[in-house]
Amino acid sequence: MDADPPRSDAAAAQPAGTPRLIGLDWGSSALRAWLLGDAGRILARRESAAGALGLDADGFHAALLALCADWLEAWPRLPVVACGMVGSREGWREAPRVRAPAGFEQLAAALLAFDEALGRPFRIVPGVMARGQIDSPDLMRGGETQVFGALRHRDGLFVLPGTHSRWVEVRGRRIVALRTYMTGEIYALMRRHSTLARMCTDPDDSPARQADALRAFDEGVDHAAAHPGSLTHLLFTARTEALLEGLAAHQVPAYLSGLLIGTELADAAAWSPHDLVPTLVARSELSSRYAHALHRLRVRARVADGDSAAAGLYALARHAGLLDAA
Amino acid sequence: MDADPPRSDAAAAQPAGTPRLIGLDWGSSALRAWLLGDAGRILARRESAAGALGLDADGFHAALLALCADWLEAWPRLPVVACGMVGSREGWREAPRVRAPAGFEQLAAALLAFDEALGRPFRIVPGVMARGQIDSPDLMRGGETQVFGALRHRDGLFVLPGTHSRWVEVRGRRIVALRTYMTGEIYALMRRHSTLARMCTDPDDSPARQADALRAFDEGVDHAAAHPGSLTHLLFTARTEALLEGLAAHQVPAYLSGLLIGTELADAAAWSPHDLVPTLVARSELSSRYAHALHRLRVRARVADGDSAAAGLYALARHAGLLDAA
Repeated sequence: MDADPPRSDAAAAQPAGTPRLIGLDWGSSALRAWLLGDAGRILARRESAAGALGLDADGFHAALLALCADWLEAWPRLPVVACGMVGSREGWREAPRVRAPAGFEQLAAALLAFDEALGRPFRIVPGVMARGQIDSPDLMRGGETQVFGALRHRDGLFVLPGTHSRWVEVRGRRIVALRTYMTGEIYALMRRHSTLARMCTDPDDSPARQADALRAFDEGVDHAAAHPGSLTHLLFTARTEALLEGLAAHQVPAYLSGLLIGTELADAAAWSPHDLVPTLVARSELSSRYAHALHRLRVRARVADGDSAAAGLYALARHAGLLDAA
Repeated sequence: MDADPPRSDAAAAQPAGTPRLIGLDWGSSALRAWLLGDAGRILARRESAAGALGLDADGFHAALLALCADWLEAWPRLPVVACGMVGSREGWREAPRVRAPAGFEQLAAALLAFDEALGRPFRIVPGVMARGQIDSPDLMRGGETQVFGALRHRDGLFVLPGTHSRWVEVRGRRIVALRTYMTGEIYALMRRHSTLARMCTDPDDSPARQADALRAFDEGVDHAAAHPGSLTHLLFTARTEALLEGLAAHQVPAYLSGLLIGTELADAAAWSPHDLVPTLVARSELSSRYAHALHRLRVRARVADGDSAAAGLYALARHAGLLDAA
């Protein structure tokens, strides 16, 4: 193992600081890690594609070492807090879900201690189950941490884009309702495995191609909003538009994305409480697509700045008394 | 090559008759073949999984021989008529589409002659393009042949379940409008490639398991009809129902099927002209699921009896004068 001080491009660009916590957002398809200093300041960030889906116990340990071995070695007592699918039944260790209404205090009290895995304080944030659309509750893991990292008022409506996109309603600082959309996953299935896949290419970065893709995205959003309930038909129009109307192969993925995001936004806007302005929890390029589509559909929305998952992990660690020991 | 007379389980169970035509319904995922006698009587039927998707010219020839070499050898001048994706740009030979309003005569006149492929009269039925939901027309290949095989009156509304399900409106014996749903394909993607796939098992044939599956199917249909526009959310409820509400692994596929078929039916029923009673073109177990769901949603519907594709192929061959030569 390398005895040099921890290295990271992000860390090199940051002013020095004393690390207080390693925070992990370990979802199904990615592992994101932060080295956090006083007041939750981000000293370094890293990411790998080692998602929780399909890893076994050895796999989790190896994936964490592959990304963060130098951090763990340099600060042997630094606590670790993780959220996301890492705490599911198929994850590293199950952290049983908290039932809504679920506030920050309930989450902090239900952190799962798993110190033996890393030989240091290691906590896994529980997921949340809350009232959904049908009789059974809806579920999330990881989103609750982002929500409490982004929450600035007593009430709020948060939109968390991703493989599984979430709309989360908060009242009196507690998560009370939740709605999951498989938007990102269905997009990936269409793009990779469907009969439409061979009609798709990725756009290059040229401004002209990017503008083409944006036009196709907008068309998809408009079709979805104009024809709610018709998604399984509209997806097929990617084929007819490509064969007959000149939709280019580098536009097809954006058109599909527009159909799926437009469907989600139209449906969720109808479901959502009307007294709350949605806050988009920024995370990736995906968030800018959501912001663009919300604007196009004339839904007023805010964008949370900063890294909400890191902020939530730090707040939970502090509340659980983990930072005193460091 | 085997010099024995053609063998087929179906043929053995049928009374003898003089073959007049080999009919092929060659879609993306299956090849179905009929040996047809006078008046289109079915003398034998066969089926293979050699769908048109991904075959090259040699592949088409080989797949046809694998299924029907004995028929082709026993009757060297027997004509062949094929419909479906075999006539698409990625098929064996492209049969350019006919634009709606498209009647039986327009289709018969536009049969593509491809005699050199088999050294005998060989015709491919063109596809149809017709007014759809958005500005671009909708498309089908194969469905037009089923529709004209099932048409009994001047007007009709036909439902053709499948990988891509079609709703086809006929006025004055011409196809005037068309709507494609990716219902079957999205089901297969969910069942095989999605994060829900590992929560699914196939039900065995025991009556109890079949009854379980039907209950889950009904629940899916009801949820879809009650929440139009929410499909990308409802699909995720398969996970929550399985984790929290006791939906068993052998019920999950039926629940997903109910959600997708229910979504299609609710949307298509709203789109469809209200003076026409839908006719379900029977083909497989899938058709009985559609009939059950239509009944559940209180949509009055008929079921076409017989094999509509075979009837349509025979009628087209006769109209094109192919049967005189045999």
